[in-house]
Formats: sequence, C-alpha cells, structure tokens
Amino acid sequence: MRSPIVLAAALLALSCTAHAQTYKSSAGPLAVTTVASGIVHPWALAFLPDGRMLVTERPGRLRIVAKDGQLSAPLDGVPKVFAVGQGGLHDVVLDRNFAQNKTIYFCFAEPVTEGETTGGRTAMARATLSDDKLDDVRVIFRQEGPLSNGGHFGCRIVQTADNNLFLTMGEHFISRDEAQKLTGHLGKIIRIKPDGSVPSDNPFVGRDDAKPEIWSYGHRNPQGAAIHPVTGKLWETEHGPKGGDEVNIPQPGKNYGWPVICYGVNYDGTPVGSGKAEMPGMEQPIKYWVPSIAPSGMAFYQANLFPKWKGSLFTGALVGEMLVRLTLNGEKVTGEERLLHELHERIRDVRVGPDGALYLVTDNQAGRILRVAPAK
Amino acid sequence: MRSPIVLAAALLALSCTAHAQTYKSSAGPLAVTTVASGIVHPWALAFLPDGRMLVTERPGRLRIVAKDGQLSAPLDGVPKVFAVGQGGLHDVVLDRNFAQNKTIYFCFAEPVTEGETTGGRTAMARATLSDDKLDDVRVIFRQEGPLSNGGHFGCRIVQTADNNLFLTMGEHFISRDEAQKLTGHLGKIIRIKPDGSVPSDNPFVGRDDAKPEIWSYGHRNPQGAAIHPVTGKLWETEHGPKGGDEVNIPQPGKNYGWPVICYGVNYDGTPVGSGKAEMPGMEQPIKYWVPSIAPSGMAFYQANLFPKWKGSLFTGALVGEMLVRLTLNGEKVTGEERLLHELHERIRDVRVGPDGALYLVTDNQAGRILRVAPAK
Repeated sequence: MRSPIVLAAALLALSCTAHAQTYKSSAGPLAVTTVASGIVHPWALAFLPDGRMLVTERPGRLRIVAKDGQLSAPLDGVPKVFAVGQGGLHDVVLDRNFAQNKTIYFCFAEPVTEGETTGGRTAMARATLSDDKLDDVRVIFRQEGPLSNGGHFGCRIVQTADNNLFLTMGEHFISRDEAQKLTGHLGKIIRIKPDGSVPSDNPFVGRDDAKPEIWSYGHRNPQGAAIHPVTGKLWETEHGPKGGDEVNIPQPGKNYGWPVICYGVNYDGTPVGSGKAEMPGMEQPIKYWVPSIAPSGMAFYQANLFPKWKGSLFTGALVGEMLVRLTLNGEKVTGEERLLHELHERIRDVRVGPDGALYLVTDNQAGRILRVAPAK
Repeated sequence: MRSPIVLAAALLALSCTAHAQTYKSSAGPLAVTTVASGIVHPWALAFLPDGRMLVTERPGRLRIVAKDGQLSAPLDGVPKVFAVGQGGLHDVVLDRNFAQNKTIYFCFAEPVTEGETTGGRTAMARATLSDDKLDDVRVIFRQEGPLSNGGHFGCRIVQTADNNLFLTMGEHFISRDEAQKLTGHLGKIIRIKPDGSVPSDNPFVGRDDAKPEIWSYGHRNPQGAAIHPVTGKLWETEHGPKGGDEVNIPQPGKNYGWPVICYGVNYDGTPVGSGKAEMPGMEQPIKYWVPSIAPSGMAFYQANLFPKWKGSLFTGALVGEMLVRLTLNGEKVTGEERLLHELHERIRDVRVGPDGALYLVTDNQAGRILRVAPAK
C-alpha cells in the first residue's frame, strides 16, 4: 500500500528538481519559480478573482495569463500606444468592485502629433473585461503639457477606499521645470473619480492657475505607488537622477521638490536646481537612495505566507536588479533588505498574490512572471 | 489509507502547476523548465560526467552549475578577456578523455594592445579542471591578423575522434576581405592538435603563403559547430549579413566564399562582393536562410527522449529568437521546424543532456539554462 505514495513523492521530486535553486533571505531560503515567460517587456500585473492574471506588455498588448502560465492572445480594445523609449502600455489595475462591475483601469503613453512632431503623453483609460475582451474602452484622463520623446512617463495607478484613482506622472525628462508648474500635469500625481471627473476636495480645485486634478507636485519619475493597508494613504516611489531615488507619502497640495531640491546630482555630476537637498515649503522623502536603484512597482505585504515580513513594503529595482524590502515603523523606514540580486533581473513590478506569494515581473525582451515563496 | 496519496498528488499539483506552460512541436507538447538563472550573457554549456555543467559568461567568467541550479563562484584561472561588443569568454568543451585527464578547452577574445589601439583576437586555451578550479591553463592557439573592435569572433570548438580540435573564427566584421587571405586566421576554421601543434595532414601545411592551421576559409562569422555522429565530419553554421546565414560541411582547403559570394546583401542593401551567390572554386552551403536568423550553438540529436527527432540537427537562433530543428537526409537538409519562438529568447547554445533533453542557454543579461523535454 505504500508504493503509490512513494511513487507520488518520487514524481514530485522528479518534476521539480529542476527548480530547486534557492536564494537567501531573512525569512529563510526563497524558491523562485517561473510562472510565465516570453512576455515582451511586461510592465504590470493584476490578479483576477479566478486566479488568472492580467499582464501588460510595454509595446502595447494586454494579455491574460492562465494559471498554467499560458498567455492569451492580446486583448482587443487597447488603444494605440506611443511605444518609444520608456513609453507604451504601462499599469493595469482592477476596480475595487471588479467582481460586480468587471471594470479595469490602465494607463499608457498616448501618441500625439503636433505640427511635425510626434510624441507621447500619459493617458488613463477604463474598460470592462468580459469574456476575455475589453468593452466600453474610454479614456478618462489625458495629460496636458509638453510632449515626451520617450522619457519619464511615471504611470502607476492606485485606487483608494472611496473609489478615487491616483495616477503618477513623470516630467518627460526633457521638461523637468514643468514639475513645479501647476498649469500642467507633468511631474504630478493626480486624483480623479472613476468617471474621470475631479473630486471636489482636491487641493487646487477652484484656482485659475492650477489644474484641478493635481494632488501633489514636484515629482520626477514616479513609477511605484500603493495604498498603505492601515492608514489608507498613498505612498509612492520615484526615480532620482544620479542618486536621489525617493519614497514619499504625498500629501494634498504639497511640493516634493523636483527639480529644485534633490539628494542626487545630474547625470553629468552637476548639482540639481538649488544644489540643496532641503528647502522650506518643500517636502522631504521618508527614504532616499544614493546611489540610485531605480524603484519600480511596489506592494505592502499583509499576507501570511511570510509571517516575518508582514507590514513590509516591497519595491522592485530596475538598475539595481533586485527586490527591496523596507521595514517600517509607522511612516518611518527602519531598515532595508536587498533580495534576489542573483537573478540579475530588472524587476518592473511586484504584487502580492492571493496565495500570499510575491509575484515579480522582469523587464526584459523575454520577460517573465516569477513567483517567490518560501523554499520548503 | 487514500489520504496520503491524495495529499502527495495535491502537493505535486501545487508545487508544479507554476511550470506547466507548454509549447507546440512536431514531437508533441514541450515542457520548458528553468534549470538555472541569473547567468550574465551565457555563451556555452558543457555537461560534466557527474551531471553538473560548465557554463561560460561572456564577460569572462566560467562557472559550474550544480544539479539543483546553483551557480558556483567564478573559477579561478580564466585569462583576462576582451569583453567588448560580441567579445568575451565564448565556447567551452570537455576533452574526449575528460574522465581520465580532466582536460577542458575554451576560447575567448583576448585583449591585445598595439600602439595606441586595444582590440581583441580569438584565442584558445586548455586547462585541467580539478577540485572545481582550473590548473595548468595554457593558451594553445592565438589568432593572427587585424584586431577586432568587438565584432565577429566566431568561436566554437569541436573535437574529432582523432582528438584534433576545430576552432571557428570570424572576420571581425571590419576586416571582411581577410576571410579570403590564407596569410591570416580571420574568417577561417582551423584544425590543431590538443597541444596546439599542427596536424601534418592539414591542407595548407608546407605552403609559404598560408597559415598551416587553416582547415577552410571564406567564412564570415561561424558561431555553431558540431561533429556529425555518423560521418564524423565537421558541420558549421555562420551568420550572413542581411540574409545569407549558412550551414556548411567544411572540406579541407575549400573556400566558402565570403565576402565574394553570398545569398544575402549588405546591411545597407547593396550587393556583397561579386553580387553573385555562386562562383566556380567556391563552395555552396547545404542550407541558407533569407532572412537571417543568426544561428548560434548547434547539436545533432541522437538520444531517445525524443524518438521522432533522432538524427535531427538543432541550432539556436539569436535574432530569430527560437530553436530550429533541421531534418536531414545524409548531407541534405530536407526540412525545418521552428520551435519555442513564444519564449522570445535569443538562444545562444544548444546541447543534448545525458538525459536526452535539449538544454538551451539564453543570451541575456539575466540569462538562463533551459531544459526542453516532452510535456507529460
């Protein structure tokens, strides 16, 4: 009677030994498995209630990843994107009431031609996902300001408990001074309702010299955003230049300093703006990195698979080629653990799966979705 | 009594579903598993008798891959390489009598400074692998001719039953006419003994106007080579320009035509050399590709895991991002199957494992070793 068990155990060993590579961490050895591969520059991941995933490919495709890792054909209905430089299809998130309304939000660099110039601006759309296709695709926000030629789109979306949406936007690299101008959307985090209208309690509502969608400003290239699971507040990460990546907790109407103050320097080594890192009227980050790691997607960890890591903030790193875990005490960062550098992967997004594992996407022409779980 | 079995089966399902992605092929669905990852631009793979593998990283590191996928520290003793452009540490193979003599051969772009210019030339070394380190490292061949600034090193090694070694070499891209000159080693396949001396039956031995190491000439950038398992003959693949990749069976003393004849055109669309694809005194490939696929490492398949594929020739493709299977009838190519394009990986090398599976290495900053086996 024991042989079938032994057989099953042997099968288990046989089919999984090829994946036995493990990686050190403060929570014990980590097993990293490839959930899906061959994804062209994946940018963002969103879990569907049935355990499947949505994944964006930066060149402009949205796909569904089956539980066995098979990729669907690209879903019809994604608007044309400006797939130049860092631009293309970026974040995707499910509406809080997705189970009822099947609504998703996604953002992208939208191609715009002005005179003889074509460039990109960030846009956000909503759509209904039914029978594995997109219906009722509607652009609910279009950025105003100078075009990007491929740099610094930002482009993370998060939704708060009141259903409002935050969208982070970069300053297009070539237009850094725009981040201080309230008359445009570059270098800003905006807050809108799910229908694209402006919440009446936004900080600049009613002012003639400011865009009403603006929540906070003075941002450089914010590519990570998440809602704190206890306080409900927005947290974001952004790329500094040579040094000066930041974690901020953006408050309404506040100025986060770019390109006036910064903990880094320009790529050529010259000082940024004032040459100072602090200035009255401008906010300080709760954490900064020198040298830069290029933080990307981020996620608060509240699940049970890694009990030691409950309450941590995870962020991927592109240039840093790693997963970073920040330990927190309220709104203070108390520690940093650098993980999975051995993979040498540019980590573009981090999400916590329904199973409590961490899911990463790798920014690569042959990108993958990786599952990170305790090695057992 | 059934519950332990069910539990084991459930465990099996749980721990392996993440790897269930399969790919279509003429031999049924293929399962592709990641054996090791985080390898920086791996170039070549060689199985050790104990089931471990040697892997080269183009920047200049040789590592041992344990059966569980763990990478060793870089082995001491690898000479400094010219890690510029396509250059660096390239192929590695075991001596036919490795079990007795622990000898390996590897080739690399060697940095050379002449006056104010530093560039690279292909070199081949032998060493003894003992206790996971290299001893008695000795360069047994150094290419003569103009320096490379990073292009077209070729660099595959194969050993024949008489222990002689073939080494393929490119024409450095900037020195294409050298491929027709017998006074230097660019664009040549050479044949030497394991101690670096010249076999007396080499075709140009005794001629004043030719290098005695030369076996065949007129090659562009030969990056794949293997010995036919039945005939014992050398087969090679090489990169054409825009179109014109080739499979050849190089005969001693013969001219393979580059840059005089070619099935492709220059990258700017202009004709190559004579503008013709055939010419008296120059050999024809047994297969050519237009457009180019950029063929890399190759292997004849003689194992039993894929009975249908016995006798096939496999080659990786870089630009083509796939594994190519050629069906053969003697020395004729009768068919071509294109596999695993869904992975979007630049396949740099293909080897057949002791288990009969195909092992691929992916040319990527976060490169992997992949095992390809029937999905069961």
